[in-house]
Amino acid sequence: MATREELLAAAGALGTPLYVYDLDLIRARLERLRDAFGRHFGVSFAVKSNPNVALLKALAPLVDSFDVSAFAEAERAIAAGMEPERLTFCGPGKRPEEIRRAVRIGLGELVVESLHEARLADRFAGELGTRQTVLLRINPATSPRAFGVNMSGKPSQFGIDEEEMAAAIDALAVLPNLDLAGFHIYSGSNSLSHEGLAENFGILTDIFRRATAHWGQKPRKLVFGAGFGVPYLPTDAEIDLAALAAEVLPGIDALKAEPAFAETELELELGRWLVGPCGWLLSSIIGAKASRGTELRICDAGFNTHLAAYGMMGSVIRRNWRIANLSNPEGSIERYTVVGPLCTTIDTLATKLELPATSIGDVIAIENSGAYGLTSSPTRFISHPEPREALLDGGRLTEVSESLLNHWRLADN
Amino acid sequence: MATREELLAAAGALGTPLYVYDLDLIRARLERLRDAFGRHFGVSFAVKSNPNVALLKALAPLVDSFDVSAFAEAERAIAAGMEPERLTFCGPGKRPEEIRRAVRIGLGELVVESLHEARLADRFAGELGTRQTVLLRINPATSPRAFGVNMSGKPSQFGIDEEEMAAAIDALAVLPNLDLAGFHIYSGSNSLSHEGLAENFGILTDIFRRATAHWGQKPRKLVFGAGFGVPYLPTDAEIDLAALAAEVLPGIDALKAEPAFAETELELELGRWLVGPCGWLLSSIIGAKASRGTELRICDAGFNTHLAAYGMMGSVIRRNWRIANLSNPEGSIERYTVVGPLCTTIDTLATKLELPATSIGDVIAIENSGAYGLTSSPTRFISHPEPREALLDGGRLTEVSESLLNHWRLADN
Repeated sequence: MATREELLAAAGALGTPLYVYDLDLIRARLERLRDAFGRHFGVSFAVKSNPNVALLKALAPLVDSFDVSAFAEAERAIAAGMEPERLTFCGPGKRPEEIRRAVRIGLGELVVESLHEARLADRFAGELGTRQTVLLRINPATSPRAFGVNMSGKPSQFGIDEEEMAAAIDALAVLPNLDLAGFHIYSGSNSLSHEGLAENFGILTDIFRRATAHWGQKPRKLVFGAGFGVPYLPTDAEIDLAALAAEVLPGIDALKAEPAFAETELELELGRWLVGPCGWLLSSIIGAKASRGTELRICDAGFNTHLAAYGMMGSVIRRNWRIANLSNPEGSIERYTVVGPLCTTIDTLATKLELPATSIGDVIAIENSGAYGLTSSPTRFISHPEPREALLDGGRLTEVSESLLNHWRLADN
Repeated sequence: MATREELLAAAGALGTPLYVYDLDLIRARLERLRDAFGRHFGVSFAVKSNPNVALLKALAPLVDSFDVSAFAEAERAIAAGMEPERLTFCGPGKRPEEIRRAVRIGLGELVVESLHEARLADRFAGELGTRQTVLLRINPATSPRAFGVNMSGKPSQFGIDEEEMAAAIDALAVLPNLDLAGFHIYSGSNSLSHEGLAENFGILTDIFRRATAHWGQKPRKLVFGAGFGVPYLPTDAEIDLAALAAEVLPGIDALKAEPAFAETELELELGRWLVGPCGWLLSSIIGAKASRGTELRICDAGFNTHLAAYGMMGSVIRRNWRIANLSNPEGSIERYTVVGPLCTTIDTLATKLELPATSIGDVIAIENSGAYGLTSSPTRFISHPEPREALLDGGRLTEVSESLLNHWRLADN
């Protein structure tokens, strides 16, 4: 875990706002995941959660596959040294040209989300004189009540409704240039509920079993969308992986004991859980004022820099994330409203936030910022300099920023 | 007003997603504004609402000043041919280096939002052997109840609280390298309420009068943050400018009749009202499916392309914007859920939207997208190609895209 000193040194060396990702911590989390679930599950990393190429380069040898959600993410993965055959490609709105390119590079598995997509892939494979391996994405009719965000049981752009899966399997089977390899379900995200997560494995296993029974063939691969959440709020607790695995794995043992699944590769797909807690957004306090009884601190990272931390990535109500004052960790605790530098009232990071006394020049760290940070944020808004990115690896800091916009340098004076 | 044929031709020529801005319409709106308010008010354009340099180039000769919210916006304005002395620079989180550069280029008026900022500006002006003209931003203690978004009467990072303005004016007056030129208030945005807008002019006038009385000098400039909204929702109506002016101008006549204000330049600052209704985001339908009784249409412009239209720019509840099917305007009306291409449930543009029958390949237009569109959106998310931008001027289409990310071209095959 990056120390306070390491983070402060990073801010000092590269300026703020700055995203720092700790590779040692990512490796440690992956090890915990393998310890808990490795008996049956491989790991697929969802590139959309953090597509930084240097980060992908570090992750490529550590995971079994990358899941990409746009063809340009496949290009990033390949630039990071990932083999095309270790990629899966999900996404409800694949452009035809994306599908054609995926087929052309020999992408591992195209996850088809509609028959329209499947027919396009079949046609392109035929035109290119090749075959394309596909997984059929299924959208469950039910999801655990204890799940947070979920995509099941209602009209959805994601995959084929469970109620229609038999017909879709039949339709896929007759497309001459596609090889159906198995099934894919991702029906919820960011859940911290053991009960919900465990129930979800049961729902997925049941659907996979029924889909396989209808198909009448042995699936080579099944992808379980994990939905593992991270503790964004101070009141949240980390998932206890060992306890969760103890609940989940007996059901998986039973599945694997059936002849149809004995050789099937199972994969957990996750992004947020793996990298989220391994990143920090570092920001400097650049303004301080008292207004109508409230102590305001203005930092240099607004929602342009971290949309999710500002409560604008699907939250109905913004809640304070975990934030630390790195410069003055031992100060007396005060209450602040922390805002960004943008000319809009919605640029509020935290209200009534308890922090050690915080002054202009202090560096604060927004925790859990390793996933859905920089690339999920409207960094062009108001033309502030885009945040830099850096990796910490064995205590060594490396800048890994990509194509920064709106940077002016002191040297331009 | 751009015709359906012109918009379709633009989508055909440049592909989608595509932002199109109609210069003729912007000029016509500006003329309406001058007709209604020109007797007393100049016009300042808020660059943050649309900082496209080609658009700024067209606007520079038409308005009196540009308001910038970051130094990089000043650079964009200057690149567009705007004189530094016609710039005002607002923003609650100006970095010291931004203030220094503003002073160095001879920026027209620095809008100081705190005494900390004022002291920095004074110091830099001293160091650079120059003087800096400033406006003091005041945050009103009250705002019209009928206003939508508002920034008044509560703790705020914006400007000096009205309750503190006398002390701030005194403190500013003794800073040797600053010239106080007047006052600035921007306390609400996007209001469609005549009553609220008219009341707001009264509140601002009253504060300006009291600030001036305390100061004891004649202000050279007063900036009225307009807060004029645009009709995003099908049920919204445009502001009747003539009616609003008839309510507002008698009060302004009275102000200008006082000796302290006879020579004062008054300015309306606005962005959204001027350019918002003059832009469209064009998007292609790339997927269609029925799921659990709902007809879904998947378009190639997700919240990565237009955060505000997806209800993620400060709206508590997402509401359908005005959207048209350009390709089939006469089709039978159907109900659709329209989503973007992103792998997340929050990527929903519209639900139960009535549109003429809409199929794959159709081009839809999201109206009112000329302000807070591309640059307010997380265009890096999932690495989809960034939208292009184009101007329509007298029916002539010109691409004005800037630094596009994630574009691969058919020629790369």
